[in-house]
Amino acid sequence: MIQSDGSALRINERRLQGDFDELSLKGATADGGVNRPALSPAHLEARDWFRRKATQAGLEFHQDGAGNHSAILRCGVPDAPALLLGSHLDSVPNGGRFDGALGVLAALEALRCVQEAGLRLPVDLEAIDFTDEEGTLASFLGSFALAGRLTLDELMAPRGGRQAFEAGLERAGLSRESILAARRDPRSLAGYLELHIEQGKRLEQAGRPIGIVSGIPGIAFYHLIFTGRADHAGTVSMQERLDAAQGASAFTLAVREILVDLFSDCFANVGQVRYEPGAFNIVPEKAILSLEFRSLESERFQKLEQALLHRARLEAERFGLGLNIEFLGKHEPAPMSRLAQDAIADAAAQLGLETLTLPSRAGHDAQIMAGLCPAGMIFIPSVGGASHSAQELTPWQDCVNGANVLLQAALRLANPPRAGS
Amino acid sequence: MIQSDGSALRINERRLQGDFDELSLKGATADGGVNRPALSPAHLEARDWFRRKATQAGLEFHQDGAGNHSAILRCGVPDAPALLLGSHLDSVPNGGRFDGALGVLAALEALRCVQEAGLRLPVDLEAIDFTDEEGTLASFLGSFALAGRLTLDELMAPRGGRQAFEAGLERAGLSRESILAARRDPRSLAGYLELHIEQGKRLEQAGRPIGIVSGIPGIAFYHLIFTGRADHAGTVSMQERLDAAQGASAFTLAVREILVDLFSDCFANVGQVRYEPGAFNIVPEKAILSLEFRSLESERFQKLEQALLHRARLEAERFGLGLNIEFLGKHEPAPMSRLAQDAIADAAAQLGLETLTLPSRAGHDAQIMAGLCPAGMIFIPSVGGASHSAQELTPWQDCVNGANVLLQAALRLANPPRAGS
Repeated sequence: MIQSDGSALRINERRLQGDFDELSLKGATADGGVNRPALSPAHLEARDWFRRKATQAGLEFHQDGAGNHSAILRCGVPDAPALLLGSHLDSVPNGGRFDGALGVLAALEALRCVQEAGLRLPVDLEAIDFTDEEGTLASFLGSFALAGRLTLDELMAPRGGRQAFEAGLERAGLSRESILAARRDPRSLAGYLELHIEQGKRLEQAGRPIGIVSGIPGIAFYHLIFTGRADHAGTVSMQERLDAAQGASAFTLAVREILVDLFSDCFANVGQVRYEPGAFNIVPEKAILSLEFRSLESERFQKLEQALLHRARLEAERFGLGLNIEFLGKHEPAPMSRLAQDAIADAAAQLGLETLTLPSRAGHDAQIMAGLCPAGMIFIPSVGGASHSAQELTPWQDCVNGANVLLQAALRLANPPRAGS
Repeated sequence: MIQSDGSALRINERRLQGDFDELSLKGATADGGVNRPALSPAHLEARDWFRRKATQAGLEFHQDGAGNHSAILRCGVPDAPALLLGSHLDSVPNGGRFDGALGVLAALEALRCVQEAGLRLPVDLEAIDFTDEEGTLASFLGSFALAGRLTLDELMAPRGGRQAFEAGLERAGLSRESILAARRDPRSLAGYLELHIEQGKRLEQAGRPIGIVSGIPGIAFYHLIFTGRADHAGTVSMQERLDAAQGASAFTLAVREILVDLFSDCFANVGQVRYEPGAFNIVPEKAILSLEFRSLESERFQKLEQALLHRARLEAERFGLGLNIEFLGKHEPAPMSRLAQDAIADAAAQLGLETLTLPSRAGHDAQIMAGLCPAGMIFIPSVGGASHSAQELTPWQDCVNGANVLLQAALRLANPPRAGS
């Protein structure tokens, strides 16, 4: 017997597995993975399959201007906000069956369960398949469009190249104009929950079946270019030189020092450096250094950026060098909402599943959605941490557990506990 | 009237200029340079020209097993040692007319002057053209062979490739066996003097017509490979990392510090570094660093090497890294002999020419000869420092001055002043 609050509701394991097996055939590769780059024929096939499944289940179906596909279970209240559950059906080239796909299937399954149970919720439930999460054509195309964070200029120079982008849009019947029109009002969104494989070994190593994602760290990329003067290394004394390698080296040591002393909650890396002209007997005129840094928290992220760039300037000055700071890109930190994390924790506890709270290593549509509404992510283990390959594997019971946590967390987020309840 | 000690002897400017103009036609390039790589047809033509000039002048001619050409003015004393004056007729590909050639021509001219004056010297005078000074086929082939410092193994893997080397030897009628037989007994050598263009701007900038080369610095080349562990830069804390970039950076700063504090008479450079795998988000597992260092003095050279490599080990240890020291090559310091430097200084003073004492930047056969006998080098200015190009230019008066200093220095080295004289 189904209780009226839905707390006893469980997903239909067999139906979910059937869906998973069917979907895995779309773009299937010989080695057991899938090859479904965004808006490729295989991806369009998977998208069609999803549309059919949604309409077969009697759910409303909607495609927005960015190609995001939504299966919708209306609550019947006019202008009710929508609680979105989802992920993405595209894959990296020669990717795995679980990344993204499982999150969309679990969302669809959750809607069917709520529908079948006849549960009345104060929100519309929407299972969403975001376009091009993997960024084959344009990074986070679907969620960025939904957030209204794209410009025509950006769409004229997409990450995957203009030709491939335009060919993809044409295959899917989309246009730049339709993408720019896909923005949704944040007030219409009650929240966003995403089930995803961890793409790492932390849950496996900790022996926990459920991960509560604390956030997706902000990350910034810079090239720092220290510029001195090329001199003959056999005639110009060390004191007279303007050696770009000195500034770059001092800064590389300083990065570690700053992080250890002042930002132990953050991460930074100098992953590459190149000296120019780069000969044994020429004092480096330029040192081009690759810097990235990360923080889960906006204010810390900003302060870390200030501290690192300030230090770079100081080290350049100390060695009489010029410094050119070349900003390459940034994602702001996206902490997952407290509300969503609590809903996931409560759901897991109710289901008797142990959890580990952990930041995500990879980017997800949830980090874009976090700017619009309470967003949360549920991770499930990846065997051996395999990711973006045919080796991706999550034991089926973990998938079922994750889908049940998604369902139960959604019910909690749809019905926030009232004071005293 | 020629004084009996030869101090009033001067070279025949017109004859020297005629020789220079004739020789400049051998391998002449459209832009006014010469293209005479070692044992190329153009180089063989230049060598033949030199042989003809020597025999026309009534000088004895000799070719050794390494192809070194010598014009010899015998003093008539049996088993008298030979005072060598010379340089090389080969050029880099598309080089200039002065580099090497002028030194050979000035040596030949000096012999003719002494011969014409009927001066009696206690030594044989030998104008020598060394084979492949530029190392197109094998570095310092002629002088290394004369010094007996080559092995069959080295000659099986010459710098310019085995095929080119063997083709060159065949064109010149030489063989590996003949090269190995070219060694001369150091006791048969009274000294070596070389006139050469500076290939730099120091004389020009100082306004001095004559450079007295103090020595040719020792130089050593290493790759230092710091090895840590590749980690995900967004998950492994700074303290847990084994970051190869930290060791390499600390060492790069230390090189400067060591040189400034303890070896201000020496030079060192970190001219390149590469991190592996070399990605923004991966902690460098390896840092491969290019180190060279130089010293004019053997003991300092050794101590500098010890200090640098010791520090590299310390910095590796400090950051928990492995260190692989890859020795790439070395030339020992070759200080020019005091005797030869004094002879050059006295000659210049007598001729009223101001001098600058300076180390050579480039390598020369004189550095090999310095291991066998008192060796000295005379530099003359290079306009704008041009070197190894058709732009090479030395004003003719500077060439004449250099040749007269060579002649007078040779007479001094042949007749060392007696105590009280």
